[in-house]
Amino acid sequence: METHTIDPADPSAPAPGRPEEETPWLTAREQRLWRAHLEVAKLLDYQLSRELQPHNLAINDYEILVVLSEAPERRMRMTDLATATLQSKSRLSHQITRMETAGLVLRQECPGDRRGLYANLTEQGWETMQRVAPCHVRSVRAHFIDRFSPEQLDAMYEALAPVAEHLRGLRGRG
Amino acid sequence: METHTIDPADPSAPAPGRPEEETPWLTAREQRLWRAHLEVAKLLDYQLSRELQPHNLAINDYEILVVLSEAPERRMRMTDLATATLQSKSRLSHQITRMETAGLVLRQECPGDRRGLYANLTEQGWETMQRVAPCHVRSVRAHFIDRFSPEQLDAMYEALAPVAEHLRGLRGRG
Repeated sequence: METHTIDPADPSAPAPGRPEEETPWLTAREQRLWRAHLEVAKLLDYQLSRELQPHNLAINDYEILVVLSEAPERRMRMTDLATATLQSKSRLSHQITRMETAGLVLRQECPGDRRGLYANLTEQGWETMQRVAPCHVRSVRAHFIDRFSPEQLDAMYEALAPVAEHLRGLRGRG
Repeated sequence: METHTIDPADPSAPAPGRPEEETPWLTAREQRLWRAHLEVAKLLDYQLSRELQPHNLAINDYEILVVLSEAPERRMRMTDLATATLQSKSRLSHQITRMETAGLVLRQECPGDRRGLYANLTEQGWETMQRVAPCHVRSVRAHFIDRFSPEQLDAMYEALAPVAEHLRGLRGRG
């Protein structure tokens, strides 16, 4: 086996001191997709956050408003809300505290339910959601959805849906 | 115009009190892609983070190691590192402090350069990178790359690359 001058930061290169076949480094084609995915995920989050700022909402706040507004009676157990938004309970708790201060949600104990606290969407939270949703959907279109052809839309969904399902399964087991 | 019972959390529904044509709500096909994208981005971040935990690295730490190891002399100005990793300077500063405590990087003033501080990859940081990269690439394959056909890999890259470019342009203007 030849020795290579390698750069371990580059997953297409072999690692030093290991046979090449041991580590399945990414090919150039795989790597360009991987980097494009990371970049789009991060930059889109940044851009959508920026466009929510005039509404005094973080992107995670907006997500909470969406999830609660879709829930029966516009409320959810904190534990279920953590699961739905894929957050740790402690992180969610901090976020809900901030949103409570802003008047968007209200924490309430559930009488006779030992499983604990509910997060309720307030009327103000509901109105905020209604006011912000049209702006947010325009952002989502401008920076993501409208940049794909109908064929690309469907092809990407076909490719991503099984990945989401796989990852949901792993998360559930965690 | 008819009145609808609507759910403003659902971008496919019209907003109350507005003509339908004003807000370009997502169609069901658009919305399923949008949700799949959000879910994959978030769950993948979670899963890769989890698989870096045994190495005592957060996913953002790993990214810093990658970027620095690819830089000339394995160092970068803090401002350039913030740009490269798409982070705010204050957030990066906190992260570098943690990584400095862990011995992975070293902050150094640059004599005669008023543009300030450099982050240097330490020998320990470099070794950590080399040790962790093979594990990380296996995670990236198992949970993302290997789940696409060669045709899907290329189609997704073709679709995402222009979006990444668009978003980089916006970020640069910010």
